[in-house]
Formats: sequence, structure tokens, C-alpha cells
Amino acid sequence: MEPHLVPWLRDRYPTSNLLRVGIGDDGALLDLGECPRAVVTTDMLMDGVDFELAHCGPARIGRKALAVNLSDLAAMAARPLAAFVSLALPASVDLAFVKSLYLAMDRLAAEFGVVIAGGDTNCWHHPLAVNITAIGQATEAGPLLRSGARPGDQILVTGAFGGSILGHHFDFSPRVAEALLLHRQYELHAGMDVSDGLSLDISRMAEASGCGAEIDLERVPIAEAAHRLAQRDGVSPRDHALADGEDFELILAVPAEVANALLDRQPLSVPLTRIGTFVERPGLWQLQPGGPPLPLEPRGYLHGTSG
Amino acid sequence: MEPHLVPWLRDRYPTSNLLRVGIGDDGALLDLGECPRAVVTTDMLMDGVDFELAHCGPARIGRKALAVNLSDLAAMAARPLAAFVSLALPASVDLAFVKSLYLAMDRLAAEFGVVIAGGDTNCWHHPLAVNITAIGQATEAGPLLRSGARPGDQILVTGAFGGSILGHHFDFSPRVAEALLLHRQYELHAGMDVSDGLSLDISRMAEASGCGAEIDLERVPIAEAAHRLAQRDGVSPRDHALADGEDFELILAVPAEVANALLDRQPLSVPLTRIGTFVERPGLWQLQPGGPPLPLEPRGYLHGTSG
Repeated sequence: MEPHLVPWLRDRYPTSNLLRVGIGDDGALLDLGECPRAVVTTDMLMDGVDFELAHCGPARIGRKALAVNLSDLAAMAARPLAAFVSLALPASVDLAFVKSLYLAMDRLAAEFGVVIAGGDTNCWHHPLAVNITAIGQATEAGPLLRSGARPGDQILVTGAFGGSILGHHFDFSPRVAEALLLHRQYELHAGMDVSDGLSLDISRMAEASGCGAEIDLERVPIAEAAHRLAQRDGVSPRDHALADGEDFELILAVPAEVANALLDRQPLSVPLTRIGTFVERPGLWQLQPGGPPLPLEPRGYLHGTSG
Repeated sequence: MEPHLVPWLRDRYPTSNLLRVGIGDDGALLDLGECPRAVVTTDMLMDGVDFELAHCGPARIGRKALAVNLSDLAAMAARPLAAFVSLALPASVDLAFVKSLYLAMDRLAAEFGVVIAGGDTNCWHHPLAVNITAIGQATEAGPLLRSGARPGDQILVTGAFGGSILGHHFDFSPRVAEALLLHRQYELHAGMDVSDGLSLDISRMAEASGCGAEIDLERVPIAEAAHRLAQRDGVSPRDHALADGEDFELILAVPAEVANALLDRQPLSVPLTRIGTFVERPGLWQLQPGGPPLPLEPRGYLHGTSG
């Protein structure tokens, strides 16, 4: 398949000022220009784990494989530049399947100014796996790390949470523009994206920052899909919001006065909501009306533990 | 598994001047220093295609997965810097398996000054797949492309060819130091590494360069393993050398006078051999004693066409 695919890809992604050498050589040559600080992310999606090929088709998989990497770049407030695509294809798929996967990926890449700069295409008699490595560029504001939260910082989130399995995990918009805008115009101490579950990811951000986090569960924005899913499975919408994962929204640690300005101005097209505070005391805590905070168990998806 | 693996990896690969942010954040931050021109390669190895897990164990897989990427960087004459490792692990393997894979990779990484800067670890109920993306830096001499060969350039190769399936495909040394030395000290017009088969890869290099190639089959260095394999399967040692692939030696296009100097001095610890000439006429040709060159069929491994 590669002999047919490589010329097709090479024509789709011509060389440019960024991509000095593209698909067809032993490697790609990227010119990062003025800024030699590269942000690199990599994610592998697998049939039966991250998608069900029989139910979703190649286009949504191609889009998602790139989108999760763009979400990671957003979490670092990096400007996306290039992506590298490795495919483990089941022997049963044809060239049309691969092109469909690429075309959907390509639409998202064009939207975010990303060039598909290389990859590796393989066949085997097992399910589909897609690995993408994305390269971005730290901006003048530097990278946004998950380890910079300080006690007293407000926990702000974009969007709403829960029930992403009903479709959002395929059609979400990586918060790249949002992260770049906020990081350029406001003082942010830390950030990450929610891939594994809101409560689990906040606890990781707190731990990486050497502090704890108190969450006001009443304030957690709950996605409409979480309500729909709750009607089916009896789990509360809030529990879905706290544990489902694949929301691909941003968690931000923001100094209190900046948080007030942000909440007031709402500079994004997606809502920003304050859901808690980073605190000295390690661990994850839920605020209680009229009492001390109670421990909150971090819940979400742990990679490599599910089957 | 990832909760146990990430701290172990983070301790093994601390941050540095190169790796400003390493394992544990949403992405890695690499500082390319003075040279913002990054060379990026990616390769996926799969059980049953690139190795047989039941027969080779995790250590050789880990080493090979990194080594093939280093060979691609060598082919571009790029200095290796960092690697990103994605794993699709069968549910049957344990943490010791993953550490064994990483420790072998790590020894090769240390040998070549490469830092493991990130990755993604996943489990499923299917065979092992390993994807590595490697990032290097073009040197002052610029990248060595496969498209720069000109009619009249001599075809030089490192090492010997054929029979790599008997072990060389696991224990080969990526020709990184060799490529960097030659590219710094001599005028090279083009280069690539032999992954799919000597005759196939020479034909690709010629095609990328808009020319053809004439091979003197008598001069092709044949590995000892090709002779051993020939005794088993009845295919001639030379045919193994021309078609087997996974030799991971370098093919170089060198101006004639430079080629003479190189062949005379033999500046590498591995032999350099002249096996032919790039020519105006497109296609791959074999020299004939006392007659015009005959067509030579490019043979080797075509990705995505085997099962």
C-alpha cells in the first residue's frame, strides 16, 4: 500500500518554509525558524480501546488521532506545526480506507495550520492502531506546564464535562487557540488538558505542582451528554463529569485576581468556569457547605490498566 | 501500568539543557539550541512483521525499535537528540517486560546520546506494537537527502548485505557516527539507509534524484549471513544481498574523485565499497562483462503489501 500512498501524501503536503524536506525521504526536515524550542507529544489510539472501528469508520479515527495530540499541544500552550502518522493497518482494509482516514485528519490539520510531515504505514492481521507524534513550538510566553500551580490559584476550566463517549470524544475541538490567547494575554501558572478524567487530571496537576486542590462540585460544568448518559446507566451526571475523561477541555491554574478578570470578561467562545482552588494541603478535596472539605477520590481512565 | 512506569521513566531520563520538560507533562519541551532545523523520523514495529515476540523477547525489540530510527537519522546525517516511545502492549505482559524493553533501548540511547523524552503506554488484547519517533538535528553541513545523486556519482556502501534475518536485523549498529564523519569531511551528494533491500533502495534513491543507477553485481559485498542463509534456502547469496533488506547500511552518492579518496583512505571502522554509478538513463541496471547493461529488477520489502 505504501507505494501508492507515499506519492499521494507527498502531493498533498508539499515542502514549505517549515517543512524543508517532507514525505519520501528517510526523515522530515523541519525549520523551526526563530524559535528552537520544540514541544513534542505522542499518542497511540487502538481499536477496541480508543475507538470501535466497526462502529465509527476511518474518518473519525483519523480526526481523533490528530485531535488528541493537538489537545496536548494546547495544554502546553504550544503552536502546532507538524504531525507524523504511523499506521498498523488490518490486512482487510484498502487504500480508500486509508485515504478516508487521512482526509479527515487533513481537514483538522488544515484548520490548525499543521502539516502532515511524515509517517510509517504497515499492515498486519490484527486490529488498527494509529500513532501520531505532533510537534509544536513554544511561544514567546514559554510553555505552559502542569507543575506551576500555587496554593491560592483558582482552578478554571473551559467547556463542560462528562458523557464524551456519546460523541464528543470524536468531534471535540482542541483548545489550541484558547490556550494561546489566554497564555499570551493573561498570567497563567499552569495548565493541562482533560484526557483521563476531570478529578484524576486535577489531582495530577496538583501533585505535579506539589500542592493540593479543593473542588466545589456544585460548580463543575456538566455536559448535556453526561445527563443523557446518566439516564441510561443510573450514574449521576456529576459523577460522569468527574470521571469520564476524553473531554479535552483545559484545566488552568490562575492567580485569583486574574481569574476574576477572566471570569468577568469571558474572552473565549467557550465558557470559562471557576470550579475550585489549589491549596497547600496535598490531595484532592471536595468543599462541603458548613464543614471542612472531605477527601475526593480521583477517578478516571488509567492507561495500561484497562484491557 | 503507566502509573508505575511514568515515575520510573522520569527518574531515568531527568531534564537537561536539551530536555527542558520531560516525561510527566502533556508534552516534552526540547531546546534545539543554536540550530532550529530538526530532522524527524518515525517507525512502527509489529509482532509477526518486524519481530516474533515469542522467539526474541522484549530487549531485542526495544533495541531494534530505537535502532531503526537512528539509522534513519544517520541516513539524513542528523545528530540524534531525543526519542518518543509509544507501546501497544498485549494484556499478558507485566511491568518487568516493559522495563526490559526500555532498558535495552536505553543502552542504545546512551551509546548514541539520545534521551527518551516521552511516550504513550497502552494495553490491549492483541499483539505488541512499538512506535518510536526520533528527533535529531541537522548539522552545519545540512541534511543529507536521498534526492541529490547526479549522473556520474559513484555508489558507495558501508558494510555487507543479505541474511539479516539471521540476527543482524536485531543487533546492527546504526551508522550515525559514520554518516556524520563522512558528511562533515567529504562531499556527499546523497544518502539513504538500506531498510527494504539494497536493489530496491538504490532504485528509490535514483528515482528521487531523477536519474538511474548501474550496479556491478560482482562488487556487492555479501554478508556471511547471506551465505549461511543460501545454504538453507537455495537462493544465491548475491540475491539475498540484493533483496533481503534490514541491513541498515548506508548507500551514498559521491563524486568520482571524492569516492576515489574515500576508497583509498577507508576512514571508517566499517569497509566502504564502490558498487556502481548513478547514470542519466532512468532505471536500475546491472553491468555485463563485454556488453551493454541489462535491466535489474529492484527487489525488497514493500511496506503495507505483506501480511
